[in-house]
Amino acid sequence: MDRFKEKLMDFNEKTINRQEIFKGNIIDVALDEVELPNGKTAQRELVFHNGGVGLLALTAEQKIVLVKQFRKPLERTILEIPAGKIEQGETDPEAVAVRELEEETDYIAGSISPIADFILSPGFCDERHYLFLATDLKKSADPLPPDEDEFLEIIELTLAEAKQEIVRGTICDAKTMYAILYWESFMS
Amino acid sequence: MDRFKEKLMDFNEKTINRQEIFKGNIIDVALDEVELPNGKTAQRELVFHNGGVGLLALTAEQKIVLVKQFRKPLERTILEIPAGKIEQGETDPEAVAVRELEEETDYIAGSISPIADFILSPGFCDERHYLFLATDLKKSADPLPPDEDEFLEIIELTLAEAKQEIVRGTICDAKTMYAILYWESFMS
Repeated sequence: MDRFKEKLMDFNEKTINRQEIFKGNIIDVALDEVELPNGKTAQRELVFHNGGVGLLALTAEQKIVLVKQFRKPLERTILEIPAGKIEQGETDPEAVAVRELEEETDYIAGSISPIADFILSPGFCDERHYLFLATDLKKSADPLPPDEDEFLEIIELTLAEAKQEIVRGTICDAKTMYAILYWESFMS
Repeated sequence: MDRFKEKLMDFNEKTINRQEIFKGNIIDVALDEVELPNGKTAQRELVFHNGGVGLLALTAEQKIVLVKQFRKPLERTILEIPAGKIEQGETDPEAVAVRELEEETDYIAGSISPIADFILSPGFCDERHYLFLATDLKKSADPLPPDEDEFLEIIELTLAEAKQEIVRGTICDAKTMYAILYWESFMS
Protein backbone atom coordinates (compact mmCIF):
# COMPACT_ATOMS: atom_id res chain seq x y z
CA MET A 1 0.00 0.00 0.00
CA ASP A 2 2.81 2.40 0.86
CA ARG A 3 4.30 3.34 -2.47
CA PHE A 4 0.89 4.41 -3.77
CA LYS A 5 -0.15 6.27 -0.65
CA GLU A 6 3.04 8.31 -0.78
CA LYS A 7 2.75 9.31 -4.43
CA LEU A 8 -0.92 10.03 -4.07
CA MET A 9 0.00 13.15 -2.14
CA ASP A 10 2.45 14.39 -4.78
CA PHE A 11 -0.07 14.51 -7.56
CA ASN A 12 -3.03 15.95 -5.68
CA GLU A 13 -4.89 18.83 -7.29
CA LYS A 14 -6.24 21.22 -4.69
CA THR A 15 -9.67 22.69 -5.39
CA ILE A 16 -9.49 26.49 -5.40
CA ASN A 17 -13.01 27.08 -6.62
CA ARG A 18 -16.02 25.07 -7.78
CA GLN A 19 -18.66 26.48 -10.09
CA GLU A 20 -21.87 24.46 -10.31
CA ILE A 21 -23.00 24.39 -13.93
CA PHE A 22 -25.98 22.02 -13.98
CA LYS A 23 -28.00 19.83 -11.67
CA GLY A 24 -30.00 17.16 -13.48
CA ASN A 25 -31.73 13.88 -12.78
CA ILE A 26 -28.93 11.76 -14.21
CA ILE A 27 -25.87 14.00 -13.98
CA ASP A 28 -24.54 17.08 -12.24
CA VAL A 29 -21.90 19.21 -13.95
CA ALA A 30 -19.29 21.40 -12.28
CA LEU A 31 -16.21 23.39 -13.26
CA ASP A 32 -13.31 23.29 -10.82
CA GLU A 33 -10.34 25.62 -10.68
CA VAL A 34 -7.47 23.57 -9.25
CA GLU A 35 -3.92 24.15 -8.08
CA LEU A 36 -1.50 21.77 -9.78
CA PRO A 37 1.53 20.18 -8.08
CA ASN A 38 3.74 22.83 -9.76
CA GLY A 39 1.70 25.68 -8.26
CA LYS A 40 0.00 26.62 -11.53
CA THR A 41 -3.76 26.54 -11.88
CA ALA A 42 -5.94 24.65 -14.32
CA GLN A 43 -9.62 24.01 -14.98
CA ARG A 44 -11.30 20.65 -14.61
CA GLU A 45 -14.66 19.92 -16.23
CA LEU A 46 -16.51 17.43 -14.03
CA VAL A 47 -19.59 15.26 -14.40
CA PHE A 48 -21.03 13.53 -11.35
CA HIS A 49 -23.18 10.41 -11.76
CA ASN A 50 -24.51 8.13 -9.05
CA GLY A 51 -23.30 4.97 -10.79
CA GLY A 52 -25.01 2.02 -12.35
CA VAL A 53 -25.28 -1.75 -12.60
CA GLY A 54 -25.35 -4.21 -15.48
CA LEU A 55 -25.77 -7.95 -15.81
CA LEU A 56 -24.22 -10.65 -17.95
CA ALA A 57 -27.44 -12.71 -17.87
CA LEU A 58 -27.01 -16.16 -19.42
CA THR A 59 -29.92 -18.45 -20.23
CA ALA A 60 -29.92 -22.24 -19.90
CA GLU A 61 -29.29 -22.36 -23.67
CA GLN A 62 -26.09 -20.34 -23.11
CA LYS A 63 -27.48 -17.22 -24.68
CA ILE A 64 -26.85 -13.70 -23.44
CA VAL A 65 -29.91 -11.57 -22.66
CA LEU A 66 -29.68 -8.15 -24.31
CA VAL A 67 -31.97 -5.14 -24.50
CA LYS A 68 -32.43 -3.10 -27.63
CA GLN A 69 -32.81 0.56 -26.78
CA PHE A 70 -32.59 3.97 -28.45
CA ARG A 71 -29.75 6.07 -27.02
CA LYS A 72 -30.18 9.78 -27.55
CA PRO A 73 -26.46 10.72 -27.23
CA LEU A 74 -25.73 8.35 -30.14
CA GLU A 75 -29.00 9.03 -32.03
CA ARG A 76 -29.37 5.32 -32.67
CA THR A 77 -30.66 2.05 -31.27
CA ILE A 78 -28.10 -0.36 -29.83
CA LEU A 79 -27.98 -3.69 -27.98
CA GLU A 80 -26.80 -3.62 -24.37
CA ILE A 81 -26.81 -5.87 -21.37
CA PRO A 82 -29.69 -5.16 -18.96
CA ALA A 83 -28.55 -2.21 -16.87
CA GLY A 84 -29.76 0.65 -14.78
CA LYS A 85 -28.84 3.61 -12.67
CA ILE A 86 -28.27 3.45 -8.93
CA GLU A 87 -30.73 5.89 -7.42
CA GLN A 88 -29.76 8.37 -4.72
CA GLY A 89 -29.74 6.59 -1.36
CA GLU A 90 -29.41 3.07 -2.79
CA THR A 91 -26.38 1.39 -1.24
CA ASP A 92 -26.53 -2.19 -2.56
CA PRO A 93 -25.64 -2.50 -6.26
CA GLU A 94 -26.66 -6.17 -6.28
CA ALA A 95 -30.20 -5.30 -5.18
CA VAL A 96 -30.37 -2.73 -7.98
CA ALA A 97 -29.16 -5.36 -10.45
CA VAL A 98 -31.85 -7.84 -9.34
CA ARG A 99 -34.53 -5.16 -9.83
CA GLU A 100 -33.24 -3.94 -13.19
CA LEU A 101 -33.02 -7.48 -14.56
CA GLU A 102 -36.65 -8.15 -13.72
CA GLU A 103 -37.83 -4.69 -14.80
CA GLU A 104 -36.12 -4.82 -18.18
CA THR A 105 -36.31 -8.52 -19.05
CA ASP A 106 -38.90 -10.18 -16.75
CA TYR A 107 -36.14 -12.58 -15.69
CA ILE A 108 -35.38 -13.54 -12.12
CA ALA A 109 -31.89 -14.92 -11.50
CA GLY A 110 -31.47 -18.01 -9.34
CA SER A 111 -27.81 -17.08 -8.95
CA ILE A 112 -26.14 -13.68 -9.05
CA SER A 113 -22.49 -12.80 -8.37
CA PRO A 114 -20.16 -9.84 -8.99
CA ILE A 115 -17.82 -9.93 -12.02
CA ALA A 116 -16.12 -6.54 -11.82
CA ASP A 117 -16.72 -2.88 -11.25
CA PHE A 118 -15.12 0.05 -13.02
CA ILE A 119 -15.09 3.80 -13.52
CA LEU A 120 -16.19 4.38 -17.08
CA SER A 121 -14.53 7.69 -17.89
CA PRO A 122 -12.25 8.81 -15.04
CA GLY A 123 -10.92 11.84 -16.91
CA PHE A 124 -14.10 13.84 -16.35
CA CYS A 125 -16.74 11.61 -14.69
CA ASP A 126 -17.01 9.64 -11.45
CA GLU A 127 -19.62 7.15 -12.74
CA ARG A 128 -18.90 3.69 -11.34
CA HIS A 129 -20.44 0.65 -12.98
CA TYR A 130 -21.01 -2.67 -11.20
CA LEU A 131 -21.17 -5.74 -13.41
CA PHE A 132 -22.84 -8.97 -12.26
CA LEU A 133 -23.21 -12.48 -13.60
CA ALA A 134 -26.81 -13.74 -13.51
CA THR A 135 -27.59 -17.39 -14.16
CA ASP A 136 -30.42 -19.88 -13.43
CA LEU A 137 -32.83 -17.47 -15.07
CA LYS A 138 -36.59 -17.93 -14.73
CA LYS A 139 -39.34 -15.76 -16.20
CA SER A 140 -41.16 -13.87 -13.44
CA ALA A 141 -44.75 -14.96 -12.82
CA ASP A 142 -45.68 -11.40 -11.90
CA PRO A 143 -43.29 -9.05 -13.78
CA LEU A 144 -42.40 -5.57 -12.54
CA PRO A 145 -43.68 -2.77 -14.77
CA PRO A 146 -40.96 -1.19 -16.94
CA ASP A 147 -39.91 2.45 -16.50
CA GLU A 148 -42.38 4.77 -18.21
CA ASP A 149 -39.75 6.41 -20.42
CA GLU A 150 -38.08 3.18 -21.52
CA PHE A 151 -38.87 1.42 -24.77
CA LEU A 152 -37.08 -1.89 -24.86
CA GLU A 153 -37.01 -5.12 -26.77
CA ILE A 154 -35.33 -8.24 -25.44
CA ILE A 155 -32.98 -10.23 -27.66
CA GLU A 156 -31.10 -13.41 -26.77
CA LEU A 157 -27.93 -14.28 -28.66
CA THR A 158 -25.32 -17.02 -28.70
CA LEU A 159 -21.70 -15.99 -28.15
CA ALA A 160 -21.02 -16.25 -31.89
CA GLU A 161 -24.05 -14.07 -32.66
CA ALA A 162 -23.06 -11.53 -30.02
CA LYS A 163 -19.55 -11.27 -31.48
CA GLN A 164 -21.12 -10.75 -34.89
CA GLU A 165 -23.15 -7.83 -33.50
CA ILE A 166 -19.94 -6.28 -32.16
CA VAL A 167 -18.52 -6.41 -35.69
CA ARG A 168 -21.74 -4.81 -37.01
CA GLY A 169 -21.62 -2.14 -34.33
CA THR A 170 -25.07 -2.76 -32.85
CA ILE A 171 -23.23 -3.94 -29.73
CA CYS A 172 -20.82 -1.12 -29.04
CA ASP A 173 -20.78 -0.11 -25.37
CA ALA A 174 -18.01 -0.79 -22.87
CA LYS A 175 -19.96 -2.66 -20.19
CA THR A 176 -21.56 -5.00 -22.75
CA MET A 177 -18.26 -5.64 -24.53
CA TYR A 178 -16.51 -6.29 -21.21
CA ALA A 179 -19.29 -8.74 -20.28
CA ILE A 180 -18.99 -10.57 -23.61
CA LEU A 181 -15.19 -10.72 -23.36
CA TYR A 182 -15.55 -12.13 -19.85
CA TRP A 183 -18.11 -14.67 -21.08
CA GLU A 184 -15.86 -15.74 -23.97
CA SER A 185 -12.76 -15.95 -21.79
CA PHE A 186 -14.01 -17.65 -18.65
CA MET A 187 -17.41 -19.22 -19.26
CA SER A 188 -17.58 -20.64 -22.77
CA MET B 1 -29.23 -5.83 -41.39
CA ASP B 2 -33.01 -5.65 -41.85
CA ARG B 3 -34.39 -6.61 -38.49
CA PHE B 4 -32.32 -3.89 -36.80
CA LYS B 5 -33.04 -1.23 -39.38
CA GLU B 6 -36.75 -1.79 -39.02
CA LYS B 7 -36.85 -1.63 -35.23
CA LEU B 8 -34.48 1.30 -35.17
CA MET B 9 -37.32 3.45 -36.51
CA ASP B 10 -39.78 2.31 -33.82
CA PHE B 11 -37.71 3.47 -30.93
CA ASN B 12 -36.51 6.81 -32.26
CA GLU B 13 -36.79 9.80 -29.97
CA LYS B 14 -37.50 12.97 -31.89
CA THR B 15 -35.74 16.10 -30.65
CA ILE B 16 -38.31 18.80 -29.88
CA ASN B 17 -35.89 21.25 -28.32
CA ARG B 18 -32.21 21.43 -27.37
CA GLN B 19 -30.92 23.69 -24.64
CA GLU B 20 -27.16 24.20 -24.60
CA ILE B 21 -25.97 24.13 -21.01
CA PHE B 22 -22.18 24.26 -21.21
CA LYS B 23 -19.40 24.41 -23.76
CA GLY B 24 -16.03 23.31 -22.37
CA ASN B 25 -12.65 22.13 -23.60
CA ILE B 26 -13.35 18.48 -22.85
CA ILE B 27 -17.13 18.24 -22.85
CA ASP B 28 -20.26 20.03 -24.02
CA VAL B 29 -23.50 19.58 -22.12
CA ALA B 30 -27.04 19.88 -23.48
CA LEU B 31 -30.58 19.19 -22.35
CA ASP B 32 -32.94 17.76 -24.98
CA GLU B 33 -36.69 17.61 -24.85
CA VAL B 34 -37.70 14.56 -26.88
CA GLU B 35 -40.88 12.98 -28.15
CA LEU B 36 -41.09 9.31 -27.17
CA PRO B 37 -42.52 6.54 -29.38
CA ASN B 38 -45.79 6.77 -27.36
CA GLY B 39 -46.14 10.49 -28.09
CA LYS B 40 -45.20 11.60 -24.57
CA THR B 41 -42.24 13.88 -23.97
CA ALA B 42 -39.17 13.35 -21.80
CA GLN B 43 -35.91 15.11 -21.03
CA ARG B 44 -32.48 13.74 -21.96
CA GLU B 45 -29.33 15.02 -20.29
CA LEU B 46 -26.49 14.80 -22.80
CA VAL B 47 -22.71 15.08 -22.64
CA PHE B 48 -20.73 15.33 -25.86
CA HIS B 49 -17.07 14.31 -25.94
CA ASN B 50 -14.79 14.01 -28.96
CA GLY B 51 -13.57 10.52 -27.99
CA GLY B 52 -10.25 9.12 -26.93
CA VAL B 53 -7.64 6.45 -27.44
CA GLY B 54 -5.81 4.07 -25.13
CA LEU B 55 -3.05 1.50 -25.52
CA LEU B 56 -2.36 -1.94 -24.12
CA ALA B 57 1.40 -1.40 -24.36
CA LEU B 58 3.40 -4.54 -23.58
CA THR B 59 7.16 -4.56 -23.05
CA ALA B 60 9.55 -7.29 -24.14
CA GLU B 61 9.42 -8.54 -20.53
CA GLN B 62 5.64 -9.00 -20.91
CA LYS B 63 4.81 -6.10 -18.63
CA ILE B 64 2.00 -3.63 -19.17
CA VAL B 65 2.93 0.05 -19.27
CA LEU B 66 0.69 2.11 -16.98
CA VAL B 67 0.54 5.78 -16.02
CA LYS B 68 -0.17 6.94 -12.50
CA GLN B 69 -2.29 10.06 -12.56
CA PHE B 70 -4.50 12.12 -10.26
CA ARG B 71 -8.12 12.16 -11.43
CA LYS B 72 -10.13 15.08 -10.13
CA PRO B 73 -13.60 13.47 -10.54
CA LEU B 74 -12.43 10.66 -8.23
CA GLU B 75 -10.22 12.86 -6.00
CA ARG B 76 -7.52 10.21 -6.08
CA THR B 77 -4.55 8.89 -8.03
CA ILE B 78 -5.08 5.77 -10.13
CA LEU B 79 -3.19 3.60 -12.63
CA GLU B 80 -4.40 3.62 -16.22
CA ILE B 81 -3.19 2.56 -19.61
CA PRO B 82 -1.62 5.42 -21.60
CA ALA B 83 -4.52 7.32 -23.12
CA GLY B 84 -5.58 10.65 -24.48
CA LYS B 85 -8.32 12.68 -26.01
CA ILE B 86 -8.93 12.96 -29.74
CA GLU B 87 -8.74 16.65 -30.53
CA GLN B 88 -11.26 18.43 -32.74
CA GLY B 89 -10.39 17.78 -36.37
CA GLU B 90 -8.30 14.67 -35.73
CA THR B 91 -9.65 11.80 -37.79
CA ASP B 92 -7.16 8.97 -37.23
CA PRO B 93 -7.37 7.41 -33.75
CA GLU B 94 -4.24 5.33 -34.40
CA ALA B 95 -2.16 8.46 -35.03
CA VAL B 96 -3.46 9.91 -31.77
CA ALA B 97 -2.52 6.68 -29.98
CA VAL B 98 1.03 6.78 -31.37
CA ARG B 99 1.40 10.37 -30.16
CA GLU B 100 -0.11 9.78 -26.71
CA LEU B 101 2.09 6.73 -26.12
CA GLU B 102 5.23 8.72 -26.80
CA GLU B 103 4.01 11.82 -24.96
CA GLU B 104 3.04 9.94 -21.81
CA THR B 105 5.62 7.13 -21.70
CA ASP B 106 8.49 8.03 -24.09
CA TYR B 107 7.84 4.70 -25.82
CA ILE B 108 7.58 4.24 -29.56
CA ALA B 109 5.75 1.09 -30.71
CA GLY B 110 7.23 -1.04 -33.49
CA SER B 111 3.81 -2.59 -33.94
CA ILE B 112 0.37 -1.15 -33.28
CA SER B 113 -3.05 -2.69 -34.03
CA PRO B 114 -6.68 -2.10 -32.99
CA ILE B 115 -8.18 -4.27 -30.22
CA ALA B 116 -11.66 -2.80 -29.85
CA ASP B 117 -13.59 0.42 -29.62
CA PHE B 118 -16.55 1.21 -27.42
CA ILE B 119 -18.93 3.88 -26.18
CA LEU B 120 -18.18 4.29 -22.49
CA SER B 121 -21.50 5.51 -21.15
CA PRO B 122 -24.17 5.48 -23.87
CA GLY B 123 -26.99 6.50 -21.53
CA PHE B 124 -25.86 10.12 -21.44
CA CYS B 125 -22.55 10.50 -23.30
CA ASP B 126 -21.32 9.87 -26.86
CA GLU B 127 -17.64 9.41 -25.92
CA ARG B 128 -16.09 6.67 -28.04
CA HIS B 129 -12.85 5.05 -26.94
CA TYR B 130 -10.43 3.32 -29.32
CA LEU B 131 -8.18 0.69 -27.76
CA PHE B 132 -4.94 -0.42 -29.43
CA LEU B 133 -2.30 -3.06 -28.82
CA ALA B 134 1.24 -1.68 -28.87
CA THR B 135 4.24 -4.01 -28.93
CA ASP B 136 7.93 -3.91 -29.94
CA LEU B 137 8.38 -0.91 -27.67
CA LYS B 138 11.51 1.22 -27.81
CA LYS B 139 12.34 4.28 -25.75
CA SER B 140 12.32 7.39 -27.90
CA ALA B 141 15.72 9.02 -28.45
CA ASP B 142 14.08 12.44 -28.56
CA PRO B 143 10.91 12.25 -26.43
CA LEU B 144 7.91 14.54 -26.99
CA PRO B 145 7.25 16.97 -24.16
CA PRO B 146 4.33 15.96 -21.92
CA ASP B 147 1.17 18.09 -21.69
CA GLU B 148 1.69 21.05 -19.38
CA ASP B 149 -1.19 20.13 -17.06
CA GLU B 150 -0.31 16.44 -16.78
CA PHE B 151 1.67 14.97 -13.90
CA LEU B 152 2.41 11.36 -14.62
CA GLU B 153 4.55 8.54 -13.40
CA ILE B 154 5.16 5.41 -15.47
CA ILE B 155 4.80 1.98 -13.88
CA GLU B 156 5.33 -1.38 -15.54
CA LEU B 157 3.60 -4.44 -14.12
CA THR B 158 3.34 -8.15 -14.83
CA LEU B 159 -0.14 -9.59 -15.42
CA ALA B 160 -0.21 -10.97 -11.86
CA GLU B 161 0.78 -7.57 -10.46
CA ALA B 162 -1.80 -5.78 -12.58
CA LYS B 163 -4.53 -8.13 -11.37
CA GLN B 164 -3.42 -7.43 -7.82
CA GLU B 165 -3.83 -3.68 -8.43
CA ILE B 166 -7.38 -4.30 -9.67
CA VAL B 167 -8.12 -6.03 -6.36
CA ARG B 168 -6.59 -3.06 -4.50
CA GLY B 169 -8.57 -0.60 -6.58
CA THR B 170 -5.63 1.44 -7.90
CA ILE B 171 -6.53 0.02 -11.31
CA CYS B 172 -10.24 0.72 -11.61
CA ASP B 173 -11.19 2.18 -14.96
CA ALA B 174 -13.07 0.43 -17.75
CA LYS B 175 -10.57 0.83 -20.61
CA THR B 176 -7.65 -0.41 -18.48
CA MET B 177 -9.64 -3.35 -17.11
CA TYR B 178 -10.81 -4.28 -20.61
CA ALA B 179 -7.19 -4.14 -21.81
CA ILE B 180 -6.01 -6.37 -18.96
CA LEU B 181 -8.84 -8.85 -19.51
CA TYR B 182 -7.92 -8.96 -23.19
CA TRP B 183 -4.24 -9.46 -22.32
CA GLU B 184 -5.08 -12.27 -19.90
CA SER B 185 -7.49 -13.96 -22.29
CA PHE B 186 -5.67 -13.79 -25.60
CA MET B 187 -2.01 -12.90 -25.08
CA SER B 188 -0.70 -14.55 -21.93
